[in-house]
Amino acid sequence: MYVVNYKQRELKDVDMAGSQKVTVRWLVGKQTGANTYAMRLFEIAPGGIIPIHSHQEEHEIFVLHGKAKLIGGVDGFAKKDDVVFVPSMEPHGYDNTEGTEIFRFICVIPLLNGE
Amino acid sequence: MYVVNYKQRELKDVDMAGSQKVTVRWLVGKQTGANTYAMRLFEIAPGGIIPIHSHQEEHEIFVLHGKAKLIGGVDGFAKKDDVVFVPSMEPHGYDNTEGTEIFRFICVIPLLNGE
Repeated sequence: MYVVNYKQRELKDVDMAGSQKVTVRWLVGKQTGANTYAMRLFEIAPGGIIPIHSHQEEHEIFVLHGKAKLIGGVDGFAKKDDVVFVPSMEPHGYDNTEGTEIFRFICVIPLLNGE
Repeated sequence: MYVVNYKQRELKDVDMAGSQKVTVRWLVGKQTGANTYAMRLFEIAPGGIIPIHSHQEEHEIFVLHGKAKLIGGVDGFAKKDDVVFVPSMEPHGYDNTEGTEIFRFICVIPLLNGE
């Protein structure tokens, strides 16, 4: 068992095509104990976006702070204390371009390719 | 894709032997889209405890609120913004018996038995 504050995990820029002002920290990844699924923490700064994309991995998300417009499979916003589920292959994205606060969320993902 | 506030999920008492003042909500479970891992939200009220236990399922935990004494494999506390990883079969528990705030955390678990 271990305990670590999330800010102790390395902060990386997300360089997915079209992403702006997005960072990620791998909280529990393959190097830190995960074997079938991993927990990451994303932040999208005001003015930032993760554009619509899709992939095999489903997402289980919990929003910690702020809000963002969901783009792709659903209209609406996700905000603090919301749970978001994105099924495999469903187009999805998160738009904070008109926001004034950081959109911070936990995103759990299967380790399909041994990441 | 769906979005739901966590408080919309059913609140259940945890009746594990020795647990006191503990509730759980299954945020993403088998009935709501999960196929290999599930996301739950636990709350341990002040005076409450999840006693030391162990099982095959590993835990990936993110603490949302409060703090609790970790019992079992590690000495110390887990508090807001901490990540806790509990490997398979490692004894673990969370003690809020001397706390003054709710200890609220996300706990992700594999669905080994098709829960």
